Amino acid sequence: MPTVPPASTAARETAVDVTALLERGRTLSTPVLRAAVNRLAPPMDTVAAYHFGWIDAAGNPAEGDGGKAVRPALAVLSAEVTGAAPETGIPGAVAVELVHNFSLLHDDLMDGDEQRRHRDTVWKVHGPAQAILVGDALMALANELLLELGTVEAGRATRRLTAATRALIDGQAQDISYENRDRVSVEECLEMEGNKTGALLACASSIGAVLGGADDRTADALEQYGYHLGLAFQAVDDLLGIWGDPDFTGKQTWSDLRQRKKSLPVVAALAAGGPASEKLGEILAADALSSDFANFSEEEFAARAALIEQAGGREWTAEEARRQHRVALEALDTVSMPDRVRDQFVALADFVVVRKR
Amino acid sequence: MPTVPPASTAARETAVDVTALLERGRTLSTPVLRAAVNRLAPPMDTVAAYHFGWIDAAGNPAEGDGGKAVRPALAVLSAEVTGAAPETGIPGAVAVELVHNFSLLHDDLMDGDEQRRHRDTVWKVHGPAQAILVGDALMALANELLLELGTVEAGRATRRLTAATRALIDGQAQDISYENRDRVSVEECLEMEGNKTGALLACASSIGAVLGGADDRTADALEQYGYHLGLAFQAVDDLLGIWGDPDFTGKQTWSDLRQRKKSLPVVAALAAGGPASEKLGEILAADALSSDFANFSEEEFAARAALIEQAGGREWTAEEARRQHRVALEALDTVSMPDRVRDQFVALADFVVVRKR
Repeated sequence: MPTVPPASTAARETAVDVTALLERGRTLSTPVLRAAVNRLAPPMDTVAAYHFGWIDAAGNPAEGDGGKAVRPALAVLSAEVTGAAPETGIPGAVAVELVHNFSLLHDDLMDGDEQRRHRDTVWKVHGPAQAILVGDALMALANELLLELGTVEAGRATRRLTAATRALIDGQAQDISYENRDRVSVEECLEMEGNKTGALLACASSIGAVLGGADDRTADALEQYGYHLGLAFQAVDDLLGIWGDPDFTGKQTWSDLRQRKKSLPVVAALAAGGPASEKLGEILAADALSSDFANFSEEEFAARAALIEQAGGREWTAEEARRQHRVALEALDTVSMPDRVRDQFVALADFVVVRKR
Repeated sequence: MPTVPPASTAARETAVDVTALLERGRTLSTPVLRAAVNRLAPPMDTVAAYHFGWIDAAGNPAEGDGGKAVRPALAVLSAEVTGAAPETGIPGAVAVELVHNFSLLHDDLMDGDEQRRHRDTVWKVHGPAQAILVGDALMALANELLLELGTVEAGRATRRLTAATRALIDGQAQDISYENRDRVSVEECLEMEGNKTGALLACASSIGAVLGGADDRTADALEQYGYHLGLAFQAVDDLLGIWGDPDFTGKQTWSDLRQRKKSLPVVAALAAGGPASEKLGEILAADALSSDFANFSEEEFAARAALIEQAGGREWTAEEARRQHRVALEALDTVSMPDRVRDQFVALADFVVVRKR
């Protein structure tokens, strides 16, 4: 049963090779990213290389799992909106990756997360000070990389990247403060997810165009595409966080429920009203006080997931993913660009949102 | 006995009112700094206001001890090098203060320092996560503030500020790594102090000029002035850290010795050779292994300080302060600027370096 929107017609008709598109972004950006990280003074260069998965904890070369590399693909693609070569977007792609990884390093430490991509996190291996330092350095390096281009466009791109960076920080601040609250509204959850996921995807989707000389209206529209794509992605991620297949997600069953995460299906179910919603509210309130939560059985989590579904949280979130995906594509319609580029943006949107359970 | 250079002739002759100069920098920059901090989302705005001393831990308004405000004074003064109004330097002054305070927030956490300016540090009052978040936010805010000016000059200023930020981070990384080493060379110590103190003072001394349209040669020369002024300041600070009067410094007697800090007088004494130097080396090596170090008496620290002085570490550091002060003033000589502005730069250099024990 798909929890997600059907692939867009455009993408199906033109049969865009998304794998090749992702590979292009990765191939163009990785050498520049590595060269940028090599600028860091020891031991920060080594710590960063560990974080990116290029070496293991003992310092030996490793086959890094760089993730899907959607952001670099979007950044180089967005350069083509203006008619520039995809290469024009490379410094933007790398800067966005640096900011993304700054936030991972700091968030993992703040959240006490010990694992990322099946590996120990940096603070766990190299200590909290290195996680702070290297995160700081990556954020600064992102700006350095753009500003040393020395162009007016680079200044504009850096300004947009800085806005996205501030949004990331705001989102993390919200995430932390929500953990200590009984109730979070759907609007608050969406705002937090927009900051944590939407803002940087917005920047990735526009930064190549900005570097290629796009005007503000074009850049804003591409940001809208990326922002809503980020919200669609996050809605799907929230569904996978509860109902995802552990073999696919690499996480435990009912992962977000185990972490008592106030994700979209949960807050939507709690906001829905009705008997299932009220029962869920009572149970989660009791869970918050329970000292035995860590030992809950599969059945207990399954019962909570069933209540969320009965209250409509699952369907609401799936519909929200479809809605955000649609809004993202509508934003594209307001920008003139070559058909081939547009088809690729659409295909990437489908790829991001259409994921297996 | 003064440990520091005599006031420069120029400053004495023109009788620059340094207090008024510092007050001008503070008056011009503080409202803009406060408005910038107010942009932060809750609770980061409150945490930052606590850090700056504008409110106490309970949230009540407080009379902040903003420090000497040398950096803002330099930033607005440097705008006048180009003939621009001092106000042109304000965004630069504020951005530099934001970066300085980003580094304080993160360094205090990494170093486990519980007190700053006689108050509990942010991580102690609001927790480590807020110290990380607010530090991140201040760094991003600094770039935002400059880049939203939207000018070519602002882009150049941001690039220089980013370089200074990276140097700050490098310096903290060096500081941390040196703590775990038996020996640090004089050169390594100077490099670390140049990164931690020189780079941002360099940026403060030039950023107003850059915003006022100064060419790179002028900006570089002003950076040289600020960089060497920072090293002179740090040399004096290192002297005060050992021989400073607690009533004046607000720290314990022999403060840096108690913290086993590898400051300039210590590394210079260890590098000097000779009987006192060797004896000092043996004692400090034994101290590093001592479990009783925390209970050492005044006399024991006094004996170590005496050895540092006998080995020449005190006189070498005082001479280094004089040398760096001289190099700073020589850099000024290469820049054309109104005499009044030059006199004020000289007076600020004297003020920074000539401090009481």
